[in-house]
Amino acid sequence: MPNLSNIGSNMNRLSGVRAIMKDIQETLARYSDQKFYDFSAGNPVILPQIIEMWRKETQNLLNDTQEFSQVIGRYGSSKGYQPFIDALCEDFNHRYNQNFSSKNVTVACGSMTIAFLAANAFAGNTEQGIFKKVLLPVTPDYTGFGGINLDPKMILGQAPIIHKDLKNHSFKYHADLENLQIDESVGLIILSRPNNPTGNILDKIEVEKIVEKAAKFNISVILDSAYSVPYPALNYKEIEPVFAPNVIHVMSLSKTGLPGERIGVAIGDQKYIDVIEAFATNTSIHSSRFGQSIATKAIKSGELAKLSESTIRPFYQNKSIALRQALLSNLSDTIPWYLHECDGGMFGWLWLENMPISDTELYDKLKAEGVIVVPGSGFFPGIQDPDWKHPCECIRLSLTASEESLEVGVPILAKVIKSVFEN
Amino acid sequence: MPNLSNIGSNMNRLSGVRAIMKDIQETLARYSDQKFYDFSAGNPVILPQIIEMWRKETQNLLNDTQEFSQVIGRYGSSKGYQPFIDALCEDFNHRYNQNFSSKNVTVACGSMTIAFLAANAFAGNTEQGIFKKVLLPVTPDYTGFGGINLDPKMILGQAPIIHKDLKNHSFKYHADLENLQIDESVGLIILSRPNNPTGNILDKIEVEKIVEKAAKFNISVILDSAYSVPYPALNYKEIEPVFAPNVIHVMSLSKTGLPGERIGVAIGDQKYIDVIEAFATNTSIHSSRFGQSIATKAIKSGELAKLSESTIRPFYQNKSIALRQALLSNLSDTIPWYLHECDGGMFGWLWLENMPISDTELYDKLKAEGVIVVPGSGFFPGIQDPDWKHPCECIRLSLTASEESLEVGVPILAKVIKSVFEN
Repeated sequence: MPNLSNIGSNMNRLSGVRAIMKDIQETLARYSDQKFYDFSAGNPVILPQIIEMWRKETQNLLNDTQEFSQVIGRYGSSKGYQPFIDALCEDFNHRYNQNFSSKNVTVACGSMTIAFLAANAFAGNTEQGIFKKVLLPVTPDYTGFGGINLDPKMILGQAPIIHKDLKNHSFKYHADLENLQIDESVGLIILSRPNNPTGNILDKIEVEKIVEKAAKFNISVILDSAYSVPYPALNYKEIEPVFAPNVIHVMSLSKTGLPGERIGVAIGDQKYIDVIEAFATNTSIHSSRFGQSIATKAIKSGELAKLSESTIRPFYQNKSIALRQALLSNLSDTIPWYLHECDGGMFGWLWLENMPISDTELYDKLKAEGVIVVPGSGFFPGIQDPDWKHPCECIRLSLTASEESLEVGVPILAKVIKSVFEN
Repeated sequence: MPNLSNIGSNMNRLSGVRAIMKDIQETLARYSDQKFYDFSAGNPVILPQIIEMWRKETQNLLNDTQEFSQVIGRYGSSKGYQPFIDALCEDFNHRYNQNFSSKNVTVACGSMTIAFLAANAFAGNTEQGIFKKVLLPVTPDYTGFGGINLDPKMILGQAPIIHKDLKNHSFKYHADLENLQIDESVGLIILSRPNNPTGNILDKIEVEKIVEKAAKFNISVILDSAYSVPYPALNYKEIEPVFAPNVIHVMSLSKTGLPGERIGVAIGDQKYIDVIEAFATNTSIHSSRFGQSIATKAIKSGELAKLSESTIRPFYQNKSIALRQALLSNLSDTIPWYLHECDGGMFGWLWLENMPISDTELYDKLKAEGVIVVPGSGFFPGIQDPDWKHPCECIRLSLTASEESLEVGVPILAKVIKSVFEN
């Protein structure tokens, strides 16, 4: 083992569900002759219409010798590829009646990198001697937020209020605004909307209250909009983006078929953008330009927004309906199970109240029966209450699962859960 | 201004020559109707044969629907794109009689990102209470190394020994091995070879001595090989890569015509690679795959190595010869000027011994006369001796400068320097 600094030791860990994902990969590889029903994937499904759009745009780029040379053959601005930024500003200003310009935008190697840069620029040790936290105001949230902090004490998760409806086997998380401590001890707030992993779209009024409270203490709020409008538009009920002087709207093109190209965008007040951009300059000069370049034309022509609504959204929405239906058909009414209202996103989030075993034990049992899920406890970064059992009563089910997994895998899942509750 | 953490304040700075580069961009934009002879560019020249290779490989990728979908449409391994890694291992093992496998390689968003990750994983505050430094053993070195440190005190530069030859207006830096303090206070050593900005290829025996000394204290050494063999092969004299258990060989494809794609590669002992990779996973999941994918076939076919030697190398080597010739023809023998031996790289490095004004004052005077250079003092990160005048007596001249810049710009440069020494 090499000598590591404190930061090195901390960043060397496999955070969140990454350890589980590693186990899943190894399991699938080890038993490659065995049939698995896989509900674990975070990788979006490759949709033919989407890939065709990116193929077409790549061919267009290739046919424009001049632009192709500039895109791959030149160092670029740390801010990002200018035509891409211009296209985004124009689209957002038009759609949401905003007034964004280049000054308000910066591009990084994926939206998680933006969260990493912002977390460590705005939270941690300060000159005033205060150690500021990154607050996740409504956990569960994206597991990656548990790994972006250079200091292990930095992430603070707040438990939500749970509204449950046993009759319909449905539940929804809300912000616990009363107990949410937003003050000088907080340096940054992050929440994903639609939420990864639950599919929750936090009510606009709740978001606005968090943002207002944060503004009083000069705290910025990252609204991670990786599943939101206008692209990939993975919202199954109306969503209105929240813009405010202290909001950093973060988007990603990963769910529009470009995860391999790592495009994350921060849009917000210049004072925040400048800091994120300077930090990125010092760590990586700039991010790759090819993906930004092919996305430019698809944004300008409106095709990306259109295909998001007509192709990407219905694909996952139909899967979310089918998942609920399959669970209703197979899971016994005697079990206190709840599927989170699927307002958007790529996942189903199943809560098994008072489950006699833990989420990871259930994961192991299911794996032994050929069904792969992701245990829920990895999606509660910064939750410190050991008495709160809820995180160990949840599992994440990916909507990328095949029809066959829904038809054959869900009955197995139901059988295993039944046996767990009966023993 | 938002509230920043200590890390935020530190990473918000424009380090090294970046402030100057900003001034240059603004100058060129502001006086766009004026003629400038530009010796400042860090951007490689777009060579037609090279761009044609990347166009061809992109078309091949596009024609392979399956691979294209996988490359852009899937999240990948944090390590990098597997076929790219396999191609690199095979090529390195064959060329240099090594035994590298996937375990020894990780890809990041440019070689500077690798330096950033390694610097902060291996140096900084440690559990033992020692604050470890990043040592640049032979400064001047790459200006970006002055910006990768999360803690401002982290970078330590060591002045070189200078061998000068006034008659031939030539000089060369050597490692000051006697005064080089390598012990527990050092967490990482970095040096570029061929060197940016000087073009120096540090003698192999000097590198080996540094590596051996470092090994005694379990310190790893990054050999930044962005200009080295096998690609882009910007060496104008023989260079033999140095491999050792504590060496992290870092390469880049930016000088092979792919700067826009940000491909940096670390090759070395698994114990170092694992740490860099884990840190990268937590901050950015993985880096973009398109560039890695088109590079794979060019590496496997040998075309990248071949074109590096037959096209990229002679282009810059001829420029370096022409620059020396132009300076010899124009700069008076009465001035104590020295051009660093150009062993490789993309820059000429001019030392004006006992210059009566500073490098930045010379930069301003030259700019006023329409000649843009880069002042040298930004290339001495971590040098703390205020009495050492040498950093303010140097300027960097890019070999990307046009023929016209050499023919018309160098005489202006010579005239201004003459006037500076005569007044």
